[in-house]
Amino acid sequence: MASSLCSRISLSAPRTAEPSNLGFFRSSDLHKLSPSIARFNRSSRKFEVQAVGSTFGNYFRVTTYGESHGGGVGCIVDGCPPRIPISEADIQADLDRRRPGQSRITTPRKETDTCKIYSGVSEGITTGTPIHISVPNTDQRGHDYSEMSIAYRPSHADATYDFKYGVRSVQGGGRSSARETIGRVAAGAIAKTILKSFSGTEVLAYVSQAHKVVLPEGIVDHHSLTLEEIEKNIARCPDPEYAEMMIAAIDAVRVRGDSVGGVVTCIARNVPRGLGSPVFDKLEAELAKACMSLPATKGFEFGSGFAGTLLAGSEHNDEFYTDEHGRIRTRTNRSGGIQGGISNGEIINMRIAFKPTSTIGRKQNTVTRDKHEIELIARGRHDPCVVPRAVPMVEAMVALVLVDQLMAQFSQCHMFPLNQDLQEPLKAPKLEPTDVTV
Amino acid sequence: MASSLCSRISLSAPRTAEPSNLGFFRSSDLHKLSPSIARFNRSSRKFEVQAVGSTFGNYFRVTTYGESHGGGVGCIVDGCPPRIPISEADIQADLDRRRPGQSRITTPRKETDTCKIYSGVSEGITTGTPIHISVPNTDQRGHDYSEMSIAYRPSHADATYDFKYGVRSVQGGGRSSARETIGRVAAGAIAKTILKSFSGTEVLAYVSQAHKVVLPEGIVDHHSLTLEEIEKNIARCPDPEYAEMMIAAIDAVRVRGDSVGGVVTCIARNVPRGLGSPVFDKLEAELAKACMSLPATKGFEFGSGFAGTLLAGSEHNDEFYTDEHGRIRTRTNRSGGIQGGISNGEIINMRIAFKPTSTIGRKQNTVTRDKHEIELIARGRHDPCVVPRAVPMVEAMVALVLVDQLMAQFSQCHMFPLNQDLQEPLKAPKLEPTDVTV
Amino acid sequence: MASSLCSRISLSAPRTAEPSNLGFFRSSDLHKLSPSIARFNRSSRKFEVQAVGSTFGNYFRVTTYGESHGGGVGCIVDGCPPRIPISEADIQADLDRRRPGQSRITTPRKETDTCKIYSGVSEGITTGTPIHISVPNTDQRGHDYSEMSIAYRPSHADATYDFKYGVRSVQGGGRSSARETIGRVAAGAIAKTILKSFSGTEVLAYVSQAHKVVLPEGIVDHHSLTLEEIEKNIARCPDPEYAEMMIAAIDAVRVRGDSVGGVVTCIARNVPRGLGSPVFDKLEAELAKACMSLPATKGFEFGSGFAGTLLAGSEHNDEFYTDEHGRIRTRTNRSGGIQGGISNGEIINMRIAFKPTSTIGRKQNTVTRDKHEIELIARGRHDPCVVPRAVPMVEAMVALVLVDQLMAQFSQCHMFPLNQDLQEPLKAPKLEPTDVTV
Amino acid sequence: MASSLCSRISLSAPRTAEPSNLGFFRSSDLHKLSPSIARFNRSSRKFEVQAVGSTFGNYFRVTTYGESHGGGVGCIVDGCPPRIPISEADIQADLDRRRPGQSRITTPRKETDTCKIYSGVSEGITTGTPIHISVPNTDQRGHDYSEMSIAYRPSHADATYDFKYGVRSVQGGGRSSARETIGRVAAGAIAKTILKSFSGTEVLAYVSQAHKVVLPEGIVDHHSLTLEEIEKNIARCPDPEYAEMMIAAIDAVRVRGDSVGGVVTCIARNVPRGLGSPVFDKLEAELAKACMSLPATKGFEFGSGFAGTLLAGSEHNDEFYTDEHGRIRTRTNRSGGIQGGISNGEIINMRIAFKPTSTIGRKQNTVTRDKHEIELIARGRHDPCVVPRAVPMVEAMVALVLVDQLMAQFSQCHMFPLNQDLQEPLKAPKLEPTDVTV
Repeated sequence: MASSLCSRISLSAPRTAEPSNLGFFRSSDLHKLSPSIARFNRSSRKFEVQAVGSTFGNYFRVTTYGESHGGGVGCIVDGCPPRIPISEADIQADLDRRRPGQSRITTPRKETDTCKIYSGVSEGITTGTPIHISVPNTDQRGHDYSEMSIAYRPSHADATYDFKYGVRSVQGGGRSSARETIGRVAAGAIAKTILKSFSGTEVLAYVSQAHKVVLPEGIVDHHSLTLEEIEKNIARCPDPEYAEMMIAAIDAVRVRGDSVGGVVTCIARNVPRGLGSPVFDKLEAELAKACMSLPATKGFEFGSGFAGTLLAGSEHNDEFYTDEHGRIRTRTNRSGGIQGGISNGEIINMRIAFKPTSTIGRKQNTVTRDKHEIELIARGRHDPCVVPRAVPMVEAMVALVLVDQLMAQFSQCHMFPLNQDLQEPLKAPKLEPTDVTV
Repeated sequence: MASSLCSRISLSAPRTAEPSNLGFFRSSDLHKLSPSIARFNRSSRKFEVQAVGSTFGNYFRVTTYGESHGGGVGCIVDGCPPRIPISEADIQADLDRRRPGQSRITTPRKETDTCKIYSGVSEGITTGTPIHISVPNTDQRGHDYSEMSIAYRPSHADATYDFKYGVRSVQGGGRSSARETIGRVAAGAIAKTILKSFSGTEVLAYVSQAHKVVLPEGIVDHHSLTLEEIEKNIARCPDPEYAEMMIAAIDAVRVRGDSVGGVVTCIARNVPRGLGSPVFDKLEAELAKACMSLPATKGFEFGSGFAGTLLAGSEHNDEFYTDEHGRIRTRTNRSGGIQGGISNGEIINMRIAFKPTSTIGRKQNTVTRDKHEIELIARGRHDPCVVPRAVPMVEAMVALVLVDQLMAQFSQCHMFPLNQDLQEPLKAPKLEPTDVTV
Repeated sequence: MASSLCSRISLSAPRTAEPSNLGFFRSSDLHKLSPSIARFNRSSRKFEVQAVGSTFGNYFRVTTYGESHGGGVGCIVDGCPPRIPISEADIQADLDRRRPGQSRITTPRKETDTCKIYSGVSEGITTGTPIHISVPNTDQRGHDYSEMSIAYRPSHADATYDFKYGVRSVQGGGRSSARETIGRVAAGAIAKTILKSFSGTEVLAYVSQAHKVVLPEGIVDHHSLTLEEIEKNIARCPDPEYAEMMIAAIDAVRVRGDSVGGVVTCIARNVPRGLGSPVFDKLEAELAKACMSLPATKGFEFGSGFAGTLLAGSEHNDEFYTDEHGRIRTRTNRSGGIQGGISNGEIINMRIAFKPTSTIGRKQNTVTRDKHEIELIARGRHDPCVVPRAVPMVEAMVALVLVDQLMAQFSQCHMFPLNQDLQEPLKAPKLEPTDVTV
Repeated sequence: MASSLCSRISLSAPRTAEPSNLGFFRSSDLHKLSPSIARFNRSSRKFEVQAVGSTFGNYFRVTTYGESHGGGVGCIVDGCPPRIPISEADIQADLDRRRPGQSRITTPRKETDTCKIYSGVSEGITTGTPIHISVPNTDQRGHDYSEMSIAYRPSHADATYDFKYGVRSVQGGGRSSARETIGRVAAGAIAKTILKSFSGTEVLAYVSQAHKVVLPEGIVDHHSLTLEEIEKNIARCPDPEYAEMMIAAIDAVRVRGDSVGGVVTCIARNVPRGLGSPVFDKLEAELAKACMSLPATKGFEFGSGFAGTLLAGSEHNDEFYTDEHGRIRTRTNRSGGIQGGISNGEIINMRIAFKPTSTIGRKQNTVTRDKHEIELIARGRHDPCVVPRAVPMVEAMVALVLVDQLMAQFSQCHMFPLNQDLQEPLKAPKLEPTDVTV
């Protein structure tokens, strides 16, 4: 994700003492410099990299496409149920939560990311045929990529794309870009609409850690959490005090040209029972893949997560009880709403770790494509911390998994009459909070 | 995973004072008891649950099948390259690392899990057609499942399978079983052989945490680690001192009838550069799904993982350098061998969290299928800690991902001549250790 | 398909005058012969080739496995709805229609092909987990394959398997075998049960051509056709007179050691409207792939087929009308029940061409694996005409497509309330015959 | 395919004597008419229907999208090998063969169908990331669709789309449109380039039948056939005399407002040996699906096809011989280049039947969406015969199958050294014509 966020970049020979007193570098000067001593600053927008596309899902299939260059980025959603009310405004709401320039703790780069539905929706409802949503590229940056090919940014996708495809062109190489996630967020908005209207299922994410500011477990009530609480501040942390601390922590690195990482927590509420396939396609496996396919992720855990490894089985197990509506529930939820790969109806919760943005405004040693060692400084407009903008991305990926699994469960297990003794309709009543939560 | 490991189970009414003075329960007595006061002990093998099957991979496709009942369990591997030398002995070596009864810290249940190749291998080499590997069920447990249906084991798949399929039969319900992983381990053994012979790629896992005994970072040298070091002790921890502490910790809960969780670390060494697809099918996303599809997993991280969120970008980035062979390398490896979803040739490392076994020999509150609250005690033979047996399972899943991605990369990017300036053959020279490791 | 049916084979040098006066060839004599003059007769069972496996379907997924060697052949069905009553007897009924030795116009080789369900069915109903069905190999033929490697049978898969996999071993090479279709027929029997019980959908195939005996269009009434009419004779032609002529035609080539081809017509009745996906996954495209994946097929057509190309649009179009139940119907059915890739509720009909069995008891020129030209005579037990045994295979493949598409349609378009003005439930009332049929 | 080709349409009550004396119908008048007596002429471009999208291929994956409305139509190609030279001009060449208005025997509607590559190609070569190709809609027809909903065109997709999706809107309903095939043809152009440069493989199609004008077998020499010969006339029949007869036949129906069908023959030359997977994914099965997914197709056959059913095995089998280069070949090619589902290196040939265009300018009985019976006349600009424009579509689908299978074979069977005795590189020498062809 970080990849789209850098701005001015300086290249200098290793061990150079004063990179800061260098003037701006012009493209036309590049040939004068030997690769090993190249150094330059560049205007920020030149280094945005390109999106690549692929397909996610089996029943509800999303293909994203597009790069920073060309007409735009977007997605094609195939397999969407017909007659779902969808508007560009619905999708735009989530895109606005994702776009750059939305606050001082995101990249200052401004883009409106205005979406348009090109096919698959008519008179405000889905038609069952592929939905094509596109966001035009208003900010064409098709020049000056020759410099870009000089240095590999550390911990960035520059080098591995070259290793994989053997294409020198930055543009063509199709680098990982936060911009690619526009298509995911757009598709996720449709998925959320389906989930909400079919089974009242809600997917909500928020920032639970920014750098060393860690929101304590239990402060956020997952039964009552609302989107409004999350959106109340620019950190997207529903606790106002911790939000302030997070913003301060991000500001602290921002002014130094550095970056920090963090954690996004995501919950899914009112999830029908029975979603997820045993063995390879367990629900937690699908969620892990979905979330770990987001740029800059380093880890995934659900329910008790890594901390659960410290408990004994007698401490960890979630005891069953029968609630006042005669439904089988668990008193605790260390299972995170999933047992044996299948949703049990309790709240699904998960945490996703994001590393600090790799593009930073501080001097780093690296190598050029020609394998010369060099120093690199990227100044300017990058996200000092990706997690506030990652919140809608995580929600989108989780919603895409859930709608796909919902359709899978519906088609396999709900064509014939249910076993009323054991099963319930997929549109189950909302759960009351259990007595004890983790 | 825990699901296959319980043995004798007691059911008692909630809040009953003396569950211990109850005699053994016989199946024929069951009808005499009201569900809410049923309590019984059972011989251990009755509660083993059934495997279900599914398919993993796109190029190298594994379908597992079978349950504890019927002829046996196994897998079908489709898409395997022809003329790979494979023997039952190769596969058996990994199955022996997985089987129950291998040490005092695994379930005492004895099974030989002897495999047989039924198709796809002729005269010791693969033929290119589907490989069918089967392990017979020597320990038929087709009776007494009626009791099983009384109580849902806490944090087990019992309840969610019922919710999903609406089938009351334990046998038919196809519960999650550690036995299902036999097929994965067998297929993984083939995958390892291909990786090793094609590119010298090695996949090795070990136990890095058991309950609260945590192996410190850096104690194990991932450049020199060998299978022999891992297999030297029953904890599968390559550090003998920590291994002893882990064994003691497991023994401590074992005698109390309780269980503990832990962490498995897995590395992949000499991985060709360029594996992994951008966007949805990033290499880390595929690994996360693969590992999180194993029973009892709660979390996945790679490279710097969750701890990486605490670092600043300037601390976290892996600087590039050119090594003595002229190859572009990173000095540190917080990227865990993967950048932008694509392998960079450094060692891939990841950590997988396993929860404590859910089947324990201690009294727990739960409900019956008829929704009556009840107390359950499962005595006897369960794994006090799953991680030693999980080691070969993790290796198998990681190997399956890598061989699938290797074939993907080979077919997309190696049909035509390489760009020698940027790319290298998939059979790259072994990496020397870098100066600095994480 | 032919591949499994040959029996005694003679190899002789090209242009040899009297191949007929050769005695039986024993395996031990093989080394005495130079490849170019090898000639031998062999007992029939030595040349049965091996099955290979793969996967068909997206929602209702079938993987077949197994070869003539090893434990047996079979299939794994993943994704089957739970609580469907399935018995081995149901499956056996279709396997008996497929097995060799069922009549004098099939290969005289006797096999019982007795199936067993190993998993996924409990107490007579499906559990929702993978169904493993296996048929043991009672007729082990693991010897004498060295001779087999000498000569490529003309128009057989021998040569192309070698080209593809580079594996010399006949056994390992995994040749195409009619025996592989056992898994398809078994899975198809489950699919038929689901279709019948969900929507009253029936799939019936019959022989409409054997060599030059062509059943005229319109003789068989597709609205009233029954399984009993088809099974009344060994040709599986519902018209007794044409059946006799077909049997005579097959007998005529049988005694000469030659073979003939033919055509299987298949219909699907009471197919719900709306099955099939636009664009690449049109219903006719899926049916074409399914049928053309059967051994020995050469062509596929539906509705008016190739003959439809001779009509003008004004002659070919199926006019719509509203029937007495207020349903929109077509007066004719040149569309074959499919318009724009989607079922319209009329009877789906298709015709599949099967070539003459390639293994014949007459002298043919061919080459050995060592590229020497040679003459080959295969005497003995082969199917003189494959179409009677192909009937249940075609039904199986068509049923697999329909159940897969039914589940697809159910999950995409039936989760939310229907548009009553345009749609109808998937369990539609049976259609009355239209006034005019093609 | 026909669906995009109609122009002015008249609706009249059944049995109405003088439909011709009606003036033009305006949308605002619609409500004044009872459905059963609606009649109107419309300007031709209002009835073009919408494209839907989906995905084809496993290794080389094409997703088409777009409708006649909105920004345009196009495709995304994922998985393309990097560093393949591709230009918009290459793609345009095939699009020009597909576009309407190219000759008097296609629809007179003029569209330029100018393509633009938006991503995945840089500096003239592919980058390995998704290729997005789009064709703008210059001819917006977003109005007057309310009339369209009145009548179902006979043998058209109108009715089945409504049955499937329950969406009344024509635009949203996403009707099948010849315009959707633009994406296929564009992707096919890339596939052809890969095939040609990797293995010299060529895919060529031509018209072998138009209405009752049937090009005799053997007139076209498949070893020497060139694109130039095919493109020499507007019928795309390489034999000039038959081309004239075809053009005359099409002209004859054109002036009557009627339409005719035909047959396209397609060959693939210099196809590497070993393509195609046994069992379900046989090469002929994949080709059948690909071709039968084109609009208006009714049948598929390869090699000897339906006519082969009339031969005896001794007449049908293709004898093997060793050619002057020591390669194993067949003297005849009734196998059509495929044996046992796998290419044998001989020329692959197939024939695809296309029905007459369903949209015609003659009166037909049909029903409205409200189920009233009605008469319909569509006057104006439709394709009198689709096969000349279908030629590049068939080539595209065949090329997409072959490149997908080539990549599959390369990844499974060419990672390790070949067995030189049996196999050859995928880039094999060109075949000389055999002595005898069918």
